[in-house]
Amino acid sequence: MRIDIITAVPELLESPLNESIVKRARDKNLVEIEIHNLRDYSLDKHLRIDDYAFGFSAGMVMQIEPIDRAISTLKTERNYDEVIYTSPDGEVFNQKTANTLSLCQNLIFLCGHYKGIDHRVREHLITKELSIGDFVLTGGELPAAMMIDAIVRLIPNVIGDEQSALYDSFQDGLLAPPVYTRPSTYKGWNVPEILLSGHQAKIDEWNHEQALERTKKLRPDLLSD
Amino acid sequence: MRIDIITAVPELLESPLNESIVKRARDKNLVEIEIHNLRDYSLDKHLRIDDYAFGFSAGMVMQIEPIDRAISTLKTERNYDEVIYTSPDGEVFNQKTANTLSLCQNLIFLCGHYKGIDHRVREHLITKELSIGDFVLTGGELPAAMMIDAIVRLIPNVIGDEQSALYDSFQDGLLAPPVYTRPSTYKGWNVPEILLSGHQAKIDEWNHEQALERTKKLRPDLLSD
Repeated sequence: MRIDIITAVPELLESPLNESIVKRARDKNLVEIEIHNLRDYSLDKHLRIDDYAFGFSAGMVMQIEPIDRAISTLKTERNYDEVIYTSPDGEVFNQKTANTLSLCQNLIFLCGHYKGIDHRVREHLITKELSIGDFVLTGGELPAAMMIDAIVRLIPNVIGDEQSALYDSFQDGLLAPPVYTRPSTYKGWNVPEILLSGHQAKIDEWNHEQALERTKKLRPDLLSD
Repeated sequence: MRIDIITAVPELLESPLNESIVKRARDKNLVEIEIHNLRDYSLDKHLRIDDYAFGFSAGMVMQIEPIDRAISTLKTERNYDEVIYTSPDGEVFNQKTANTLSLCQNLIFLCGHYKGIDHRVREHLITKELSIGDFVLTGGELPAAMMIDAIVRLIPNVIGDEQSALYDSFQDGLLAPPVYTRPSTYKGWNVPEILLSGHQAKIDEWNHEQALERTKKLRPDLLSD
Protein backbone atom coordinates (compact mmCIF):
# COMPACT_ATOMS: atom_id res chain seq x y z
CA MET A 1 0.00 0.00 0.00
CA ARG A 2 1.06 3.57 -0.66
CA ILE A 3 -0.23 6.57 1.27
CA ASP A 4 0.42 10.19 0.27
CA ILE A 5 -0.32 12.89 2.81
CA ILE A 6 -0.71 16.52 1.76
CA THR A 7 -0.33 18.99 4.61
CA ALA A 8 0.57 22.58 5.44
CA VAL A 9 2.25 21.44 8.68
CA PRO A 10 4.40 18.40 7.84
CA GLU A 11 6.28 18.69 11.15
CA LEU A 12 3.13 17.59 13.01
CA LEU A 13 3.27 14.21 11.32
CA GLU A 14 6.89 13.37 11.98
CA SER A 15 6.76 11.40 15.20
CA PRO A 16 3.35 9.75 14.68
CA LEU A 17 4.53 8.20 11.41
CA ASN A 18 8.07 7.37 12.46
CA GLU A 19 7.46 5.38 15.61
CA SER A 20 5.84 2.19 16.74
CA ILE A 21 3.80 0.02 14.39
CA VAL A 22 3.71 2.45 11.46
CA LYS A 23 7.50 2.71 11.54
CA ARG A 24 7.79 -1.07 11.62
CA ALA A 25 5.44 -1.42 8.64
CA ARG A 26 7.47 1.15 6.70
CA ASP A 27 10.75 -0.55 7.62
CA LYS A 28 9.37 -3.87 6.34
CA ASN A 29 8.21 -2.16 3.11
CA LEU A 30 4.63 -3.17 3.81
CA VAL A 31 3.54 0.42 3.41
CA GLU A 32 5.09 3.43 1.73
CA ILE A 33 4.13 6.79 3.23
CA GLU A 34 5.10 10.10 1.64
CA ILE A 35 4.43 13.44 3.26
CA HIS A 36 4.02 16.39 0.87
CA ASN A 37 4.41 19.95 2.03
CA LEU A 38 1.62 21.96 0.43
CA ARG A 39 3.92 24.97 0.18
CA ASP A 40 5.98 23.10 -2.41
CA TYR A 41 2.96 23.42 -4.70
CA SER A 42 2.41 27.13 -4.20
CA LEU A 43 2.99 29.42 -7.18
CA ASP A 44 3.15 32.44 -4.89
CA LYS A 45 6.58 33.96 -4.42
CA HIS A 46 6.11 33.87 -0.63
CA LEU A 47 4.92 30.23 -0.89
CA ARG A 48 1.55 31.33 0.39
CA ILE A 49 -1.16 28.64 0.52
CA ASP A 50 -3.98 30.43 2.37
CA ASP A 51 -5.94 33.64 2.11
CA TYR A 52 -8.76 35.47 3.86
CA ALA A 53 -12.19 33.82 3.86
CA PHE A 54 -14.74 35.52 1.62
CA GLY A 55 -17.56 36.87 3.75
CA PHE A 56 -15.90 36.40 7.13
CA SER A 57 -14.11 39.05 9.14
CA ALA A 58 -11.61 36.51 10.50
CA GLY A 59 -10.02 33.21 9.58
CA MET A 60 -7.67 31.92 6.90
CA VAL A 61 -8.76 29.39 4.30
CA MET A 62 -6.48 27.03 2.38
CA GLN A 63 -6.54 27.90 -1.33
CA ILE A 64 -7.68 25.55 -4.07
CA GLU A 65 -4.76 26.08 -6.46
CA PRO A 66 -1.85 24.56 -4.48
CA ILE A 67 -4.10 21.67 -3.39
CA ASP A 68 -5.21 21.02 -6.97
CA ARG A 69 -1.59 21.09 -8.14
CA ALA A 70 -0.50 18.65 -5.41
CA ILE A 71 -3.32 16.17 -6.08
CA SER A 72 -2.97 16.44 -9.88
CA THR A 73 0.78 15.82 -9.70
CA LEU A 74 0.26 12.67 -7.63
CA LYS A 75 -2.49 11.47 -9.97
CA THR A 76 -0.14 11.61 -12.96
CA GLU A 77 2.10 9.13 -11.11
CA ARG A 78 -0.46 6.46 -10.15
CA ASN A 79 -4.17 5.77 -9.75
CA TYR A 80 -5.67 6.47 -6.34
CA ASP A 81 -8.50 4.51 -4.74
CA GLU A 82 -9.56 7.50 -2.67
CA VAL A 83 -8.66 11.14 -2.09
CA ILE A 84 -9.59 11.57 1.56
CA TYR A 85 -10.20 14.82 3.42
CA THR A 86 -10.36 14.73 7.21
CA SER A 87 -13.16 16.97 8.44
CA PRO A 88 -15.51 17.03 11.42
CA ASP A 89 -18.53 16.96 9.10
CA GLY A 90 -17.39 13.87 7.19
CA GLU A 91 -18.57 10.26 7.56
CA VAL A 92 -17.49 8.92 10.96
CA PHE A 93 -14.35 6.78 10.74
CA ASN A 94 -14.70 3.38 12.40
CA GLN A 95 -13.19 -0.11 12.33
CA LYS A 96 -15.23 -1.00 9.25
CA THR A 97 -13.79 1.99 7.37
CA ALA A 98 -10.30 0.94 8.50
CA ASN A 99 -10.89 -2.60 7.23
CA THR A 100 -12.11 -1.35 3.83
CA LEU A 101 -9.29 1.16 3.38
CA SER A 102 -6.67 -1.43 4.41
CA LEU A 103 -7.48 -3.26 1.16
CA CYS A 104 -6.69 -0.25 -1.05
CA GLN A 105 -3.53 0.17 -3.12
CA ASN A 106 -3.07 3.94 -3.11
CA LEU A 107 -4.59 6.60 -0.86
CA ILE A 108 -4.24 10.36 -0.59
CA PHE A 109 -4.98 12.11 2.71
CA LEU A 110 -5.45 15.87 2.53
CA CYS A 111 -5.18 17.52 5.95
CA GLY A 112 -7.11 20.72 6.52
CA HIS A 113 -5.69 23.39 8.79
CA TYR A 114 -6.65 26.92 9.86
CA LYS A 115 -10.32 27.67 9.18
CA GLY A 116 -10.56 24.91 6.56
CA ILE A 117 -10.12 24.47 2.83
CA ASP A 118 -11.81 26.23 -0.07
CA HIS A 119 -15.11 24.41 -0.48
CA ARG A 120 -14.51 23.86 -4.20
CA VAL A 121 -11.76 21.39 -3.26
CA ARG A 122 -14.35 19.33 -1.40
CA GLU A 123 -16.83 19.52 -4.26
CA HIS A 124 -14.46 18.67 -7.11
CA LEU A 125 -11.24 17.01 -5.88
CA ILE A 126 -12.10 14.91 -2.83
CA THR A 127 -13.70 11.45 -3.09
CA LYS A 128 -14.21 10.72 0.62
CA GLU A 129 -14.60 12.89 3.72
CA LEU A 130 -13.88 11.22 7.04
CA SER A 131 -14.43 12.50 10.56
CA ILE A 132 -12.75 11.30 13.71
CA GLY A 133 -15.52 12.58 15.98
CA ASP A 134 -17.69 15.49 17.04
CA PHE A 135 -15.03 17.93 18.11
CA VAL A 136 -12.87 20.64 16.65
CA LEU A 137 -9.12 20.36 16.22
CA THR A 138 -6.46 22.71 14.98
CA GLY A 139 -5.86 20.58 11.93
CA GLY A 140 -6.49 17.30 10.18
CA GLU A 141 -2.95 16.01 10.72
CA LEU A 142 -3.54 14.03 13.93
CA PRO A 143 -6.79 12.51 12.63
CA ALA A 144 -4.98 11.43 9.45
CA ALA A 145 -2.11 9.94 11.48
CA MET A 146 -4.58 8.05 13.62
CA MET A 147 -6.59 6.72 10.68
CA ILE A 148 -3.33 5.63 9.06
CA ASP A 149 -2.31 3.80 12.25
CA ALA A 150 -5.69 2.01 12.36
CA ILE A 151 -5.44 1.08 8.66
CA VAL A 152 -1.77 0.07 8.54
CA ARG A 153 -1.99 -2.33 11.48
CA LEU A 154 -4.57 -4.35 9.52
CA ILE A 155 -2.20 -4.99 6.60
CA PRO A 156 -1.07 -8.64 6.77
CA ASN A 157 2.26 -9.18 8.59
CA VAL A 158 2.38 -5.67 10.07
CA ILE A 159 1.60 -6.80 13.61
CA GLY A 160 3.11 -10.00 14.86
CA ASP A 161 1.56 -12.74 16.95
CA GLU A 162 2.61 -10.97 20.11
CA GLN A 163 0.12 -8.20 19.41
CA SER A 164 -2.53 -10.54 18.06
CA ALA A 165 -5.49 -8.46 16.97
CA LEU A 166 -7.85 -11.38 17.59
CA TYR A 167 -9.27 -10.04 20.84
CA ASP A 168 -9.08 -6.37 19.94
CA SER A 169 -12.23 -4.40 20.54
CA PHE A 170 -14.61 -4.14 17.53
CA GLN A 171 -12.95 -6.78 15.33
CA ASP A 172 -15.53 -9.36 16.47
CA GLY A 173 -18.24 -6.79 17.20
CA LEU A 174 -17.50 -6.87 20.94
CA LEU A 175 -15.40 -4.83 23.32
CA ALA A 176 -12.24 -6.56 24.50
CA PRO A 177 -12.36 -8.54 27.77
CA PRO A 178 -10.40 -7.15 30.74
CA VAL A 179 -6.72 -8.12 30.70
CA TYR A 180 -4.35 -8.76 33.61
CA THR A 181 -0.69 -9.50 34.12
CA ARG A 182 1.72 -10.15 37.00
CA PRO A 183 1.71 -9.74 39.93
CA SER A 184 -1.47 -11.72 40.64
CA THR A 185 -1.94 -9.75 43.87
CA TYR A 186 -1.12 -6.05 44.24
CA LYS A 187 -2.19 -3.99 47.27
CA GLY A 188 -4.89 -6.57 47.94
CA TRP A 189 -6.30 -6.26 44.41
CA ASN A 190 -6.41 -9.73 42.87
CA VAL A 191 -6.46 -11.09 39.36
CA PRO A 192 -9.65 -13.16 38.81
CA GLU A 193 -8.84 -16.74 39.90
CA ILE A 194 -10.09 -18.35 36.71
CA LEU A 195 -7.25 -16.68 34.76
CA LEU A 196 -4.68 -18.41 36.98
CA SER A 197 -6.39 -21.82 36.79
CA GLY A 198 -4.64 -23.15 33.71
CA HIS A 199 -7.93 -24.47 32.23
CA GLN A 200 -7.64 -22.80 28.83
CA ALA A 201 -11.12 -23.80 27.62
CA LYS A 202 -12.74 -22.32 30.73
CA ILE A 203 -10.56 -19.23 30.44
CA ASP A 204 -11.59 -18.74 26.80
CA GLU A 205 -15.22 -19.05 27.82
CA TRP A 206 -14.73 -16.53 30.65
CA ASN A 207 -13.02 -14.08 28.28
CA HIS A 208 -15.91 -14.33 25.85
CA GLU A 209 -18.48 -13.87 28.63
CA GLN A 210 -16.61 -10.85 29.94
CA ALA A 211 -16.38 -9.33 26.46
CA LEU A 212 -20.12 -9.84 26.00
CA GLU A 213 -20.92 -8.44 29.46
CA ARG A 214 -18.75 -5.35 28.99
CA THR A 215 -20.34 -4.74 25.60
CA LYS A 216 -23.88 -5.09 27.01
CA LYS A 217 -23.06 -2.70 29.85
CA LEU A 218 -20.95 -0.10 28.07
CA ARG A 219 -21.95 -0.28 24.42
CA PRO A 220 -25.27 -2.07 23.90
CA ASP A 221 -25.54 -0.31 20.53
CA LEU A 222 -22.77 -2.55 19.16
CA LEU A 223 -24.95 -5.63 19.77
CA SER A 224 -28.02 -4.26 18.02
CA ASP A 225 -26.24 -3.40 14.76
CA MET B 1 -3.78 24.37 33.21
CA ARG B 2 -1.30 21.56 33.73
CA ILE B 3 -1.44 18.26 31.85
CA ASP B 4 0.71 15.24 32.72
CA ILE B 5 0.93 12.41 30.21
CA ILE B 6 2.14 8.96 31.23
CA THR B 7 3.27 6.81 28.31
CA ALA B 8 5.47 3.88 27.35
CA VAL B 9 6.28 5.55 24.00
CA PRO B 10 7.06 9.22 24.71
CA GLU B 11 8.64 9.66 21.26
CA LEU B 12 5.17 9.34 19.69
CA LEU B 13 4.06 12.52 21.41
CA GLU B 14 6.97 14.74 20.47
CA SER B 15 5.78 16.43 17.32
CA PRO B 16 2.05 16.57 18.14
CA LEU B 17 2.74 18.52 21.33
CA ASN B 18 5.55 20.70 20.01
CA GLU B 19 3.92 22.21 16.94
CA SER B 20 1.06 24.45 16.01
CA ILE B 21 -1.49 25.63 18.57
CA VAL B 22 -0.35 23.43 21.45
CA LYS B 23 3.20 24.74 21.08
CA ARG B 24 1.92 28.31 21.03
CA ALA B 25 -0.12 27.73 24.18
CA ARG B 26 2.92 26.24 25.92
CA ASP B 27 5.14 29.11 24.76
CA LYS B 28 2.63 31.60 26.20
CA ASN B 29 2.54 29.63 29.48
CA LEU B 30 -1.19 29.10 29.09
CA VAL B 31 -0.69 25.38 29.52
CA GLU B 32 2.10 23.29 31.02
CA ILE B 33 2.47 19.80 29.54
CA GLU B 34 4.83 17.21 30.99
CA ILE B 35 5.45 13.84 29.36
CA HIS B 36 6.46 11.03 31.73
CA ASN B 37 8.18 7.91 30.47
CA LEU B 38 6.59 4.98 32.26
CA ARG B 39 9.94 3.16 32.27
CA ASP B 40 11.26 5.75 34.73
CA TYR B 41 8.82 4.27 37.25
CA SER B 42 9.79 0.62 36.74
CA LEU B 43 11.51 -1.16 39.62
CA ASP B 44 12.69 -3.89 37.25
CA LYS B 45 16.40 -3.87 36.47
CA HIS B 46 15.60 -4.06 32.74
CA LEU B 47 13.05 -1.23 33.17
CA ARG B 48 10.34 -3.60 32.12
CA ILE B 49 6.77 -2.28 32.28
CA ASP B 50 4.78 -5.08 30.64
CA ASP B 51 4.35 -8.81 30.98
CA TYR B 52 2.35 -11.64 29.41
CA ALA B 53 -1.41 -11.52 29.73
CA PHE B 54 -2.87 -14.08 32.14
CA GLY B 55 -5.07 -16.51 30.23
CA PHE B 56 -4.03 -15.44 26.73
CA SER B 57 -1.50 -17.16 24.53
CA ALA B 58 -0.34 -13.86 23.03
CA GLY B 59 -0.17 -10.18 23.88
CA MET B 60 1.68 -8.02 26.38
CA VAL B 61 -0.14 -6.10 29.11
CA MET B 62 1.12 -2.99 30.90
CA GLN B 63 1.72 -3.75 34.58
CA ILE B 64 -0.04 -2.02 37.44
CA GLU B 65 3.01 -1.27 39.58
CA PRO B 66 4.88 1.28 37.40
CA ILE B 67 1.57 2.98 36.54
CA ASP B 68 0.58 3.17 40.22
CA ARG B 69 4.00 4.61 41.09
CA ALA B 70 3.77 7.22 38.31
CA ILE B 71 0.26 8.36 39.25
CA SER B 72 1.00 8.32 43.00
CA THR B 73 4.14 10.41 42.54
CA LEU B 74 2.23 13.03 40.57
CA LYS B 75 -0.58 13.06 43.14
CA THR B 76 1.86 13.95 45.93
CA GLU B 77 2.74 17.08 43.95
CA ARG B 78 -0.76 18.44 43.26
CA ASN B 79 -4.45 17.55 43.15
CA TYR B 80 -5.80 16.27 39.87
CA ASP B 81 -9.29 16.88 38.55
CA GLU B 82 -9.22 13.68 36.50
CA VAL B 83 -6.96 10.72 35.79
CA ILE B 84 -7.93 9.88 32.22
CA TYR B 85 -7.30 6.63 30.36
CA THR B 86 -7.80 6.58 26.60
CA SER B 87 -9.52 3.37 25.59
CA PRO B 88 -11.88 2.32 22.78
CA ASP B 89 -14.46 1.18 25.35
CA GLY B 90 -14.55 4.49 27.22
CA GLU B 91 -17.11 7.30 26.98
CA VAL B 92 -16.96 8.90 23.53
CA PHE B 93 -14.96 12.14 23.54
CA ASN B 94 -16.79 15.08 21.97
CA GLN B 95 -16.85 18.88 22.00
CA LYS B 96 -18.82 18.91 25.26
CA THR B 97 -16.13 16.79 26.95
CA ALA B 98 -13.49 19.15 25.57
CA ASN B 99 -15.37 22.18 26.93
CA THR B 100 -15.68 20.59 30.39
CA LEU B 101 -12.05 19.48 30.57
CA SER B 102 -10.81 22.89 29.38
CA LEU B 103 -12.04 24.29 32.72
CA CYS B 104 -9.90 21.88 34.79
CA GLN B 105 -6.69 22.83 36.60
CA ASN B 106 -4.73 19.57 36.48
CA LEU B 107 -5.22 16.49 34.32
CA ILE B 108 -3.38 13.20 33.96
CA PHE B 109 -3.61 11.25 30.70
CA LEU B 110 -2.49 7.62 30.85
CA CYS B 111 -1.86 6.16 27.40
CA GLY B 112 -2.35 2.44 26.93
CA HIS B 113 -0.14 0.53 24.50
CA TYR B 114 0.33 -3.09 23.45
CA LYS B 115 -2.68 -5.26 24.40
CA GLY B 116 -3.79 -2.80 27.08
CA ILE B 117 -3.26 -2.14 30.79
CA ASP B 118 -3.85 -4.38 33.78
CA HIS B 119 -7.57 -4.04 34.47
CA ARG B 120 -6.95 -3.25 38.15
CA VAL B 121 -5.53 0.09 37.05
CA ARG B 122 -8.86 0.90 35.42
CA GLU B 123 -10.82 -0.23 38.48
CA HIS B 124 -8.77 1.57 41.13
CA LEU B 125 -6.64 4.37 39.68
CA ILE B 126 -8.52 5.87 36.74
CA THR B 127 -11.33 8.40 37.19
CA LYS B 128 -12.41 8.80 33.55
CA GLU B 129 -12.13 6.58 30.45
CA LEU B 130 -12.42 8.35 27.12
CA SER B 131 -12.68 6.89 23.64
CA ILE B 132 -11.91 8.60 20.39
CA GLY B 133 -14.07 6.27 18.34
CA ASP B 134 -14.94 2.71 17.40
CA PHE B 135 -11.62 1.55 16.06
CA VAL B 136 -8.42 -0.02 17.30
CA LEU B 137 -5.10 1.78 17.43
CA THR B 138 -1.62 0.74 18.41
CA GLY B 139 -1.70 2.98 21.45
CA GLY B 140 -3.46 5.76 23.29
CA GLU B 141 -0.82 8.36 22.49
CA LEU B 142 -2.42 9.87 19.37
CA PRO B 143 -5.90 9.96 20.95
CA ALA B 144 -4.43 11.73 24.00
CA ALA B 145 -2.58 14.22 21.77
CA MET B 146 -5.79 14.91 19.86
CA MET B 147 -7.92 15.36 22.98
CA ILE B 148 -5.27 17.72 24.36
CA ASP B 149 -5.35 19.74 21.12
CA ALA B 150 -9.16 19.98 21.33
CA ILE B 151 -9.01 21.01 25.00
CA VAL B 152 -6.07 23.42 24.85
CA ARG B 153 -7.48 25.46 21.96
CA LEU B 154 -10.49 26.31 24.17
CA ILE B 155 -8.37 27.91 26.90
CA PRO B 156 -8.84 31.69 26.70
CA ASN B 157 -6.18 33.52 24.64
CA VAL B 158 -4.76 30.35 23.08
CA ILE B 159 -6.22 31.02 19.66
CA GLY B 160 -6.26 34.52 18.34
CA ASP B 161 -8.95 36.36 16.44
CA GLU B 162 -7.52 35.16 13.16
CA GLN B 163 -8.57 31.63 14.01
CA SER B 164 -11.86 32.67 15.55
CA ALA B 165 -13.60 29.58 16.86
CA LEU B 166 -16.96 31.29 16.47
CA TYR B 167 -18.00 29.42 13.36
CA ASP B 168 -16.25 26.14 14.19
CA SER B 169 -18.38 23.05 13.81
CA PHE B 170 -20.20 21.91 16.99
CA GLN B 171 -19.57 25.01 19.08
CA ASP B 172 -23.04 26.30 18.20
CA GLY B 173 -24.56 22.86 17.63
CA LEU B 174 -24.22 23.20 13.85
CA LEU B 175 -21.67 22.13 11.27
CA ALA B 176 -19.59 24.97 9.88
CA PRO B 177 -20.76 26.69 6.67
CA PRO B 178 -18.65 26.15 3.52
CA VAL B 179 -15.68 28.53 3.27
CA TYR B 180 -14.03 30.03 0.20
CA THR B 181 -11.05 32.18 -0.59
CA ARG B 182 -9.36 33.68 -3.66
CA PRO B 183 -9.42 33.26 -6.59
CA SER B 184 -13.16 33.75 -7.01
CA THR B 185 -13.06 31.70 -10.21
CA TYR B 186 -10.85 28.67 -10.71
CA LYS B 187 -11.21 26.30 -13.67
CA GLY B 188 -14.78 27.52 -14.07
CA TRP B 189 -15.67 26.74 -10.45
CA ASN B 190 -17.05 29.89 -8.85
CA VAL B 191 -17.37 31.20 -5.33
CA PRO B 192 -21.06 31.80 -4.49
CA GLU B 193 -21.88 35.37 -5.59
CA ILE B 194 -23.39 36.40 -2.28
CA LEU B 195 -19.98 36.07 -0.61
CA LEU B 196 -18.53 38.64 -3.02
CA SER B 197 -21.45 41.07 -2.63
CA GLY B 198 -20.14 43.05 0.34
CA HIS B 199 -23.55 42.94 2.11
CA GLN B 200 -22.33 41.60 5.44
CA ALA B 201 -25.81 41.13 6.95
CA LYS B 202 -26.93 39.06 3.95
CA ILE B 203 -23.67 37.13 4.02
CA ASP B 204 -24.10 36.32 7.71
CA GLU B 205 -27.62 35.14 6.98
CA TRP B 206 -26.37 32.98 4.09
CA ASN B 207 -23.65 31.47 6.29
CA HIS B 208 -26.17 30.57 8.95
CA GLU B 209 -28.55 29.05 6.38
CA GLN B 210 -25.72 27.03 4.88
CA ALA B 211 -24.63 25.78 8.30
CA LEU B 212 -28.19 24.74 9.06
CA GLU B 213 -28.63 23.09 5.66
CA ARG B 214 -25.37 21.15 5.91
CA THR B 215 -26.29 19.98 9.40
CA LYS B 216 -29.77 18.86 8.27
CA LYS B 217 -28.28 16.96 5.36
CA LEU B 218 -25.15 15.45 6.93
CA ARG B 219 -25.86 15.27 10.66
CA PRO B 220 -29.58 15.58 11.45
CA ASP B 221 -28.83 13.93 14.82
CA LEU B 222 -27.13 17.16 15.98
CA LEU B 223 -30.41 19.06 15.60
CA SER B 224 -32.50 16.61 17.59
CA ASP B 225 -30.26 16.64 20.70
